[in-house]
Amino acid sequence: MTERPARARKRPPQRRGAPVVERVLELAVEELARVGFHRLSVPTLADRAGLNKTSVYRRWPTKDALVAAALERAMGHEASLPDTGTLPSDMLAFALAAAAWADSPVGRGVMKALMADGDDPEVRALVARIRDRRRAGPRALFERAIERGELTRTADVRMALTVIAGAISHRIVVEDARVTPAFVKRLVTLVADGLLATKE
Amino acid sequence: MTERPARARKRPPQRRGAPVVERVLELAVEELARVGFHRLSVPTLADRAGLNKTSVYRRWPTKDALVAAALERAMGHEASLPDTGTLPSDMLAFALAAAAWADSPVGRGVMKALMADGDDPEVRALVARIRDRRRAGPRALFERAIERGELTRTADVRMALTVIAGAISHRIVVEDARVTPAFVKRLVTLVADGLLATKE
Repeated sequence: MTERPARARKRPPQRRGAPVVERVLELAVEELARVGFHRLSVPTLADRAGLNKTSVYRRWPTKDALVAAALERAMGHEASLPDTGTLPSDMLAFALAAAAWADSPVGRGVMKALMADGDDPEVRALVARIRDRRRAGPRALFERAIERGELTRTADVRMALTVIAGAISHRIVVEDARVTPAFVKRLVTLVADGLLATKE
Repeated sequence: MTERPARARKRPPQRRGAPVVERVLELAVEELARVGFHRLSVPTLADRAGLNKTSVYRRWPTKDALVAAALERAMGHEASLPDTGTLPSDMLAFALAAAAWADSPVGRGVMKALMADGDDPEVRALVARIRDRRRAGPRALFERAIERGELTRTADVRMALTVIAGAISHRIVVEDARVTPAFVKRLVTLVADGLLATKE
């Protein structure tokens, strides 16, 4: 919300719709964290964004589509994967960015809300959809390590990603503890060591 | 329920209370998996076990105490930690036993129920209590590896346990997928390799 005036100022006249879209997506993530998927109401959201609900439904035909887009935008910060030169430090940069969002008030709220509704097939499908898209991100990071000759092709990178995501969500949802940079560092050290120990 | 007659037959007369205790604890875990912590009713449970609720409350003064005892009993199968000779195979035996319970219908139900109520301070305290007790179990396993000279004292065994628990619960609660022996084997291989790579 504090960023809004800055964004509005930068807004090019021909892209008048963009900040509104951003605003709806931002509100959707906040609402999801606050009330959960089931109680999230698209008409209420549209109202809070100062829009007609038809305008919202025109862009995102279902609540599902809206929430998926909102989460993708919110988690997008980790999309940049700087080449730091080694697999452990590449993984650390990636995991720190992912954990920073997950550990934010909104991130923690979203994870808990999705977990609490985890028995619902609609929420489950949504989580699977986001997970699959997010898995594509770090692939480049492992490819680089293979090209460098640091990692073998047989290393279980899929399990490494499951383990990192699992430990972070377990820390937040089950232990209700903070995901500190120190925690992420210990986690990545263990997992990267495991990957690097893989024999051809 | 099908095991009941067999147990009843084996019951030694001098320990008449024991099977009743077992039965209450067994029912409590089933109910927890079915209705969750909040909707679990001690009077209903006592009734189903054919007991007066006062008898149940005499032994377990609170629902909390009853559920904690029930979960401890249910998860107790993994308490035996056979010495298989190496850290990875010791860890695998332990994780397979823990995963077998977690992946059973009752285990999956319990994990989902506890996760769904995860925002509740009472449930959270219960989960923390069980986790702390369970952590003590595998300690012997790591101590053996240190004595063998296989593992250094600086290895992050606490993180290894968090990661294993996190990956199993993530698999069940978030991914709604089965925790197969193949999954556990991949998980333990990665984590054990990470631990063994730790330098003094």
